Amino acid sequence: MSGNSFGLLFTVTSFGESHGPGIGCVVDGCPPGMALCAEDIQVELDRRKPGTSRHVTQRREEDRVEVLSGVYEGKTTGTPIALLIRNTDQRSRDYGNIADAFRPGHADYTYWHKYGIRDPRGGGRSSARETAVRVAAGAIAKKWLHEKFGIVIRGHLTQIGEVAIPFTDWADVEKNPFFAADSAIVPTLEHYMDEIRKSLDSVGARLRVVAENVPVGWGEPVYDRLDAEIAYAMMGINAVKGVEIGAGFGCVTQRGSEHGDELTPQGFASNHAGGVLGGISSGQPIEVSIAIKPTSSIATPRRSIDKQGAPVQLETHGRHDPCVGIRATPIAEAMLALVLIDHALRHRAQCGDVSVSTPRI
Amino acid sequence: MSGNSFGLLFTVTSFGESHGPGIGCVVDGCPPGMALCAEDIQVELDRRKPGTSRHVTQRREEDRVEVLSGVYEGKTTGTPIALLIRNTDQRSRDYGNIADAFRPGHADYTYWHKYGIRDPRGGGRSSARETAVRVAAGAIAKKWLHEKFGIVIRGHLTQIGEVAIPFTDWADVEKNPFFAADSAIVPTLEHYMDEIRKSLDSVGARLRVVAENVPVGWGEPVYDRLDAEIAYAMMGINAVKGVEIGAGFGCVTQRGSEHGDELTPQGFASNHAGGVLGGISSGQPIEVSIAIKPTSSIATPRRSIDKQGAPVQLETHGRHDPCVGIRATPIAEAMLALVLIDHALRHRAQCGDVSVSTPRI
Amino acid sequence: MSGNSFGLLFTVTSFGESHGPGIGCVVDGCPPGMALCAEDIQVELDRRKPGTSRHVTQRREEDRVEVLSGVYEGKTTGTPIALLIRNTDQRSRDYGNIADAFRPGHADYTYWHKYGIRDPRGGGRSSARETAVRVAAGAIAKKWLHEKFGIVIRGHLTQIGEVAIPFTDWADVEKNPFFAADSAIVPTLEHYMDEIRKSLDSVGARLRVVAENVPVGWGEPVYDRLDAEIAYAMMGINAVKGVEIGAGFGCVTQRGSEHGDELTPQGFASNHAGGVLGGISSGQPIEVSIAIKPTSSIATPRRSIDKQGAPVQLETHGRHDPCVGIRATPIAEAMLALVLIDHALRHRAQCGDVSVSTPRI
Amino acid sequence: MSGNSFGLLFTVTSFGESHGPGIGCVVDGCPPGMALCAEDIQVELDRRKPGTSRHVTQRREEDRVEVLSGVYEGKTTGTPIALLIRNTDQRSRDYGNIADAFRPGHADYTYWHKYGIRDPRGGGRSSARETAVRVAAGAIAKKWLHEKFGIVIRGHLTQIGEVAIPFTDWADVEKNPFFAADSAIVPTLEHYMDEIRKSLDSVGARLRVVAENVPVGWGEPVYDRLDAEIAYAMMGINAVKGVEIGAGFGCVTQRGSEHGDELTPQGFASNHAGGVLGGISSGQPIEVSIAIKPTSSIATPRRSIDKQGAPVQLETHGRHDPCVGIRATPIAEAMLALVLIDHALRHRAQCGDVSVSTPRI
Repeated sequence: MSGNSFGLLFTVTSFGESHGPGIGCVVDGCPPGMALCAEDIQVELDRRKPGTSRHVTQRREEDRVEVLSGVYEGKTTGTPIALLIRNTDQRSRDYGNIADAFRPGHADYTYWHKYGIRDPRGGGRSSARETAVRVAAGAIAKKWLHEKFGIVIRGHLTQIGEVAIPFTDWADVEKNPFFAADSAIVPTLEHYMDEIRKSLDSVGARLRVVAENVPVGWGEPVYDRLDAEIAYAMMGINAVKGVEIGAGFGCVTQRGSEHGDELTPQGFASNHAGGVLGGISSGQPIEVSIAIKPTSSIATPRRSIDKQGAPVQLETHGRHDPCVGIRATPIAEAMLALVLIDHALRHRAQCGDVSVSTPRI
Repeated sequence: MSGNSFGLLFTVTSFGESHGPGIGCVVDGCPPGMALCAEDIQVELDRRKPGTSRHVTQRREEDRVEVLSGVYEGKTTGTPIALLIRNTDQRSRDYGNIADAFRPGHADYTYWHKYGIRDPRGGGRSSARETAVRVAAGAIAKKWLHEKFGIVIRGHLTQIGEVAIPFTDWADVEKNPFFAADSAIVPTLEHYMDEIRKSLDSVGARLRVVAENVPVGWGEPVYDRLDAEIAYAMMGINAVKGVEIGAGFGCVTQRGSEHGDELTPQGFASNHAGGVLGGISSGQPIEVSIAIKPTSSIATPRRSIDKQGAPVQLETHGRHDPCVGIRATPIAEAMLALVLIDHALRHRAQCGDVSVSTPRI
Repeated sequence: MSGNSFGLLFTVTSFGESHGPGIGCVVDGCPPGMALCAEDIQVELDRRKPGTSRHVTQRREEDRVEVLSGVYEGKTTGTPIALLIRNTDQRSRDYGNIADAFRPGHADYTYWHKYGIRDPRGGGRSSARETAVRVAAGAIAKKWLHEKFGIVIRGHLTQIGEVAIPFTDWADVEKNPFFAADSAIVPTLEHYMDEIRKSLDSVGARLRVVAENVPVGWGEPVYDRLDAEIAYAMMGINAVKGVEIGAGFGCVTQRGSEHGDELTPQGFASNHAGGVLGGISSGQPIEVSIAIKPTSSIATPRRSIDKQGAPVQLETHGRHDPCVGIRATPIAEAMLALVLIDHALRHRAQCGDVSVSTPRI
Repeated sequence: MSGNSFGLLFTVTSFGESHGPGIGCVVDGCPPGMALCAEDIQVELDRRKPGTSRHVTQRREEDRVEVLSGVYEGKTTGTPIALLIRNTDQRSRDYGNIADAFRPGHADYTYWHKYGIRDPRGGGRSSARETAVRVAAGAIAKKWLHEKFGIVIRGHLTQIGEVAIPFTDWADVEKNPFFAADSAIVPTLEHYMDEIRKSLDSVGARLRVVAENVPVGWGEPVYDRLDAEIAYAMMGINAVKGVEIGAGFGCVTQRGSEHGDELTPQGFASNHAGGVLGGISSGQPIEVSIAIKPTSSIATPRRSIDKQGAPVQLETHGRHDPCVGIRATPIAEAMLALVLIDHALRHRAQCGDVSVSTPRI
């Protein structure tokens, strides 16, 4: 496979370019009988949608999803669910200069060398626009996980550039355009982002995703560990450069007597493991943290080369997120949901329904 | 698949328990015609072998590998290469107390709940002993990558607990038991590790792996990105809690004007990307950093529960690494090799041999 | 995976129901740089299209294909090619009786028991309408195989019911609605089919597909043999009940001295093997023969049961092919093309480009 | 993957050559908690073992299986089960003439061209010796299918050359070396086979495999249909040239009013479908028939060429089955078991345990 499918049993196969006719996916393996309509998916897409505040790209995409198959009379049938999102705001403009040169920090150079051909319009296939597909597919996964197991998957930004964002309340996250779990810090963030934008630059971010109520027993050792698959899913999001589970890099300076979570009759006494032991979910919350690099498309002039290897100067104008990390929250949630549903099904395949619902201790 | 196979085209299928008859794997997809003998594999196994210094486990395993198939007259035939390592030092002892209770930080609890049965002898399948298999398979991958493309994959420890280890010289790495690229710091590390051991505790570590001479063009967007697969491979190593590519978590506070590597006619001006752009290798060195948690098996008493949920105190005596990170270097190198060879073959499948050897610019 | 993807490296993921918004697929893994436009696909779809003669279903589907992605300026880019065919002729009618009862010979009964829900409109996902998707994807595979290797894949009907159809000339196949390679027999077939239709019944058929100019060396022993994958592909076509390679069932009464194809300096002296030895292509034409059962939907009353298990009588009126085998020819060709391109890429992955173009003898 | 793994969820990865150190496999995905010992596997291996009568090869292989992993205290643990069968009767002899020339009907020619290298000792990887591995893995599958669902999988020879073998009684099958379900015909078969052997020739065969008590609902449309996967499994057995499900090629001359199995409140009225409708099991017996070509290794001189393309005459002496079909029965049973367990798990993954055990009608 050429890398456009995600998941072994709940499989998302993605397609589409930023400025082609549309983007979409086929979701294969969704259990039958679940209530599903386009609106269930749309609500998640709207969380990721561009143009919702001045701090994100101003591209105007409605991101309306059409369900082409797999649902009959409002229920999933067990057959493939195809989703299509037409592109509507592909501004006609001259790509000549970008088509011939390679933007620093972008996939232009590598796509060109890999395939010998590349679609330069808006980044083509390498555009973060493809992540809308993940959010759409993830919405289906989220719904099933919640209905079947009560699983709740939520994310929030923990840092933008130098500004750490404290966790105060999950309820705050949906009340500001920064996915910040602390309403008090929002003015600081607005000011900070305005400064970044004025300086014609961009900045990195860090976010945290948590899945609660995951049953004990999901994850396939030794290679397809739950945490390994989460790392794969997260590092596979555009612009992500680092992934941590539980204590993450903090474990380097920990002692074993501190890191290893003790068990008591009331449950685990801590969660440095981040909900995964030996690659298998422990029943504790799954804790993930990721680093997102600053947007590569900036209006500051940068050195590069063209296809002939001659030096050029590039500055990228247009409608770009000054911090791609901001809109990454729903994407990271979606990816975590896709990993979890796949492992829910894999676990059920090998061990049956029983072992999940009745932990034997 | 239940998670014991790694790679799509160069596929390693692993088996074996810590205290069963043996461990091993089947390597499927190795290109035919490469010179290969058991010694090529043994030399890498010996780097990971226990008992090489007082700072690692004193278990005495020869780790002799037998090649059961796939090689004829000293050359690979294109058929599966089966490797077998017999276990020889499974001390007969009483596992009664460990068999009934769950060691903190271990997979005991999750295996039990997942499968309803578990092999408690030395951790069974969850033992780090399985990583010998990865090193063995990785040795084949390393050899092919080096012979075909001149790729060099090397790793070194960059931190043990609070002690940062500077990079001085690759040549130093094989001269000390810490995989430290700086001979001068070795006495400090020896003293530090002696203290850890005396305190009946363990400590975390951080290491870096680098692959040089990787051609531009490897990696399959959008999900099977090279960096995503590396993250999967690294997080899938026992005890790893964090993975970084290039700038890693450092990118959170970077500006776009700093992070995005400029291109010049002489090549890239920096490597914050860590050799991967848009999920595809850029031709720069692949740079990976991982965090390894402190060993969970320590002689300090810890709280836990037994299968009936009753509280118990556990202290783990025996032959355990006080810092599992130390012996992780050859494992991380092996995993990086396995990812790279798989993507070399995937790239060749879709784009043919030409596009790799003749970058078109 | 829930079975809607075909191929490991050239992967077709299919979606859609007979009377939903549309059908389509995502083709992942197509090599980049091949000229491709919708018309290349349309021409094959038109060969399978319903309503082309009185001997096939009268459903009026234009089967217009839209290319949603993966092609830029008339060339494949190496990214997923999504194809969409909107359904246009879903007659509004009452499915009540079919929705509650199970048509003999159909998938109604098994879908219902498998999923607990089923889309009864025109057979839903189990409709042969899905095969249009295979023909569309196969058109891309055919084009690449022909351009890269000069491979020609052709099929023709060899029998309808009791009427054997001789092979006279490939050129005749496209001149009659029966895919018969003998124009002289067409009046006989027309008469025969008219009688079948008048008797409110249907009839089986047999067809042969041949691939010429396939290089020696394709196919992956021991399980993914080329012939095994062909059998999988062919038996996976709706209504197929038997598959033969080369001598097929004729080999039961052959002697080894007859069956085993001798080699001479001028090449093989016969082709009982059907172009495959040990699961690997031999360079001779690939010869495949399949049996297609009579259409299950007939106007003759038949016994069945409803969801409650009560007996009912069903007769299926509507627009059905009296011999589904007739339109199966382009489908079988497409499936053979999909198997071959997948193995072309798999071979290239493991053995490189060279071994195909330069047979070493 | 290079084709040495079978099954998506119950995955068998095979290795080994005819005259190397041994053959074996790794079975990944076996559900935990099933009682299993080496003897459970040995009993099936003994049915396939060479040297049991004068009508099969006289090679003396004990085929003793060693279980290397995945079983603890007599129960499967859910981890990979590795099986190893050491080769013991590799006669030392000169392979010179076979090593340089290509035996007609064998894989010599194609392996050589595919890989550029081949192990000529006893056919190397292409030897039917590899099928012992399938029987061993199939024994595990059979046991689970029987214990969990009461499924019974049995096969018998229906024809050797021109001699049709009637079905009289399943009990007869194990009482004669021909897997004939009719004891009365055994003298005829013995005489027939003696004649074949005396004529220094070999002959083809046909056999039938049946699986009873398969629940309704297994099989993944549209490509991974149960019958498609069975065809893949059967055609993947060495020497098989044809596969039929249910009516098979007989359906060509059937009418729809005859072929489509009617349903009654008491069940299906016939089984022309062979237990599969729309690719999904119907609850009726799965009926499969296969054609096996005559052994290629015969003592009659045959024309061939050597590696330089020069003409040679080859006659193969040694210990070969005059009818490889005879020992194919346990192999075909094993492959059917492997398909069924994989689909049992795939069904359970998507639809849960309930839908199988409680058909909803």
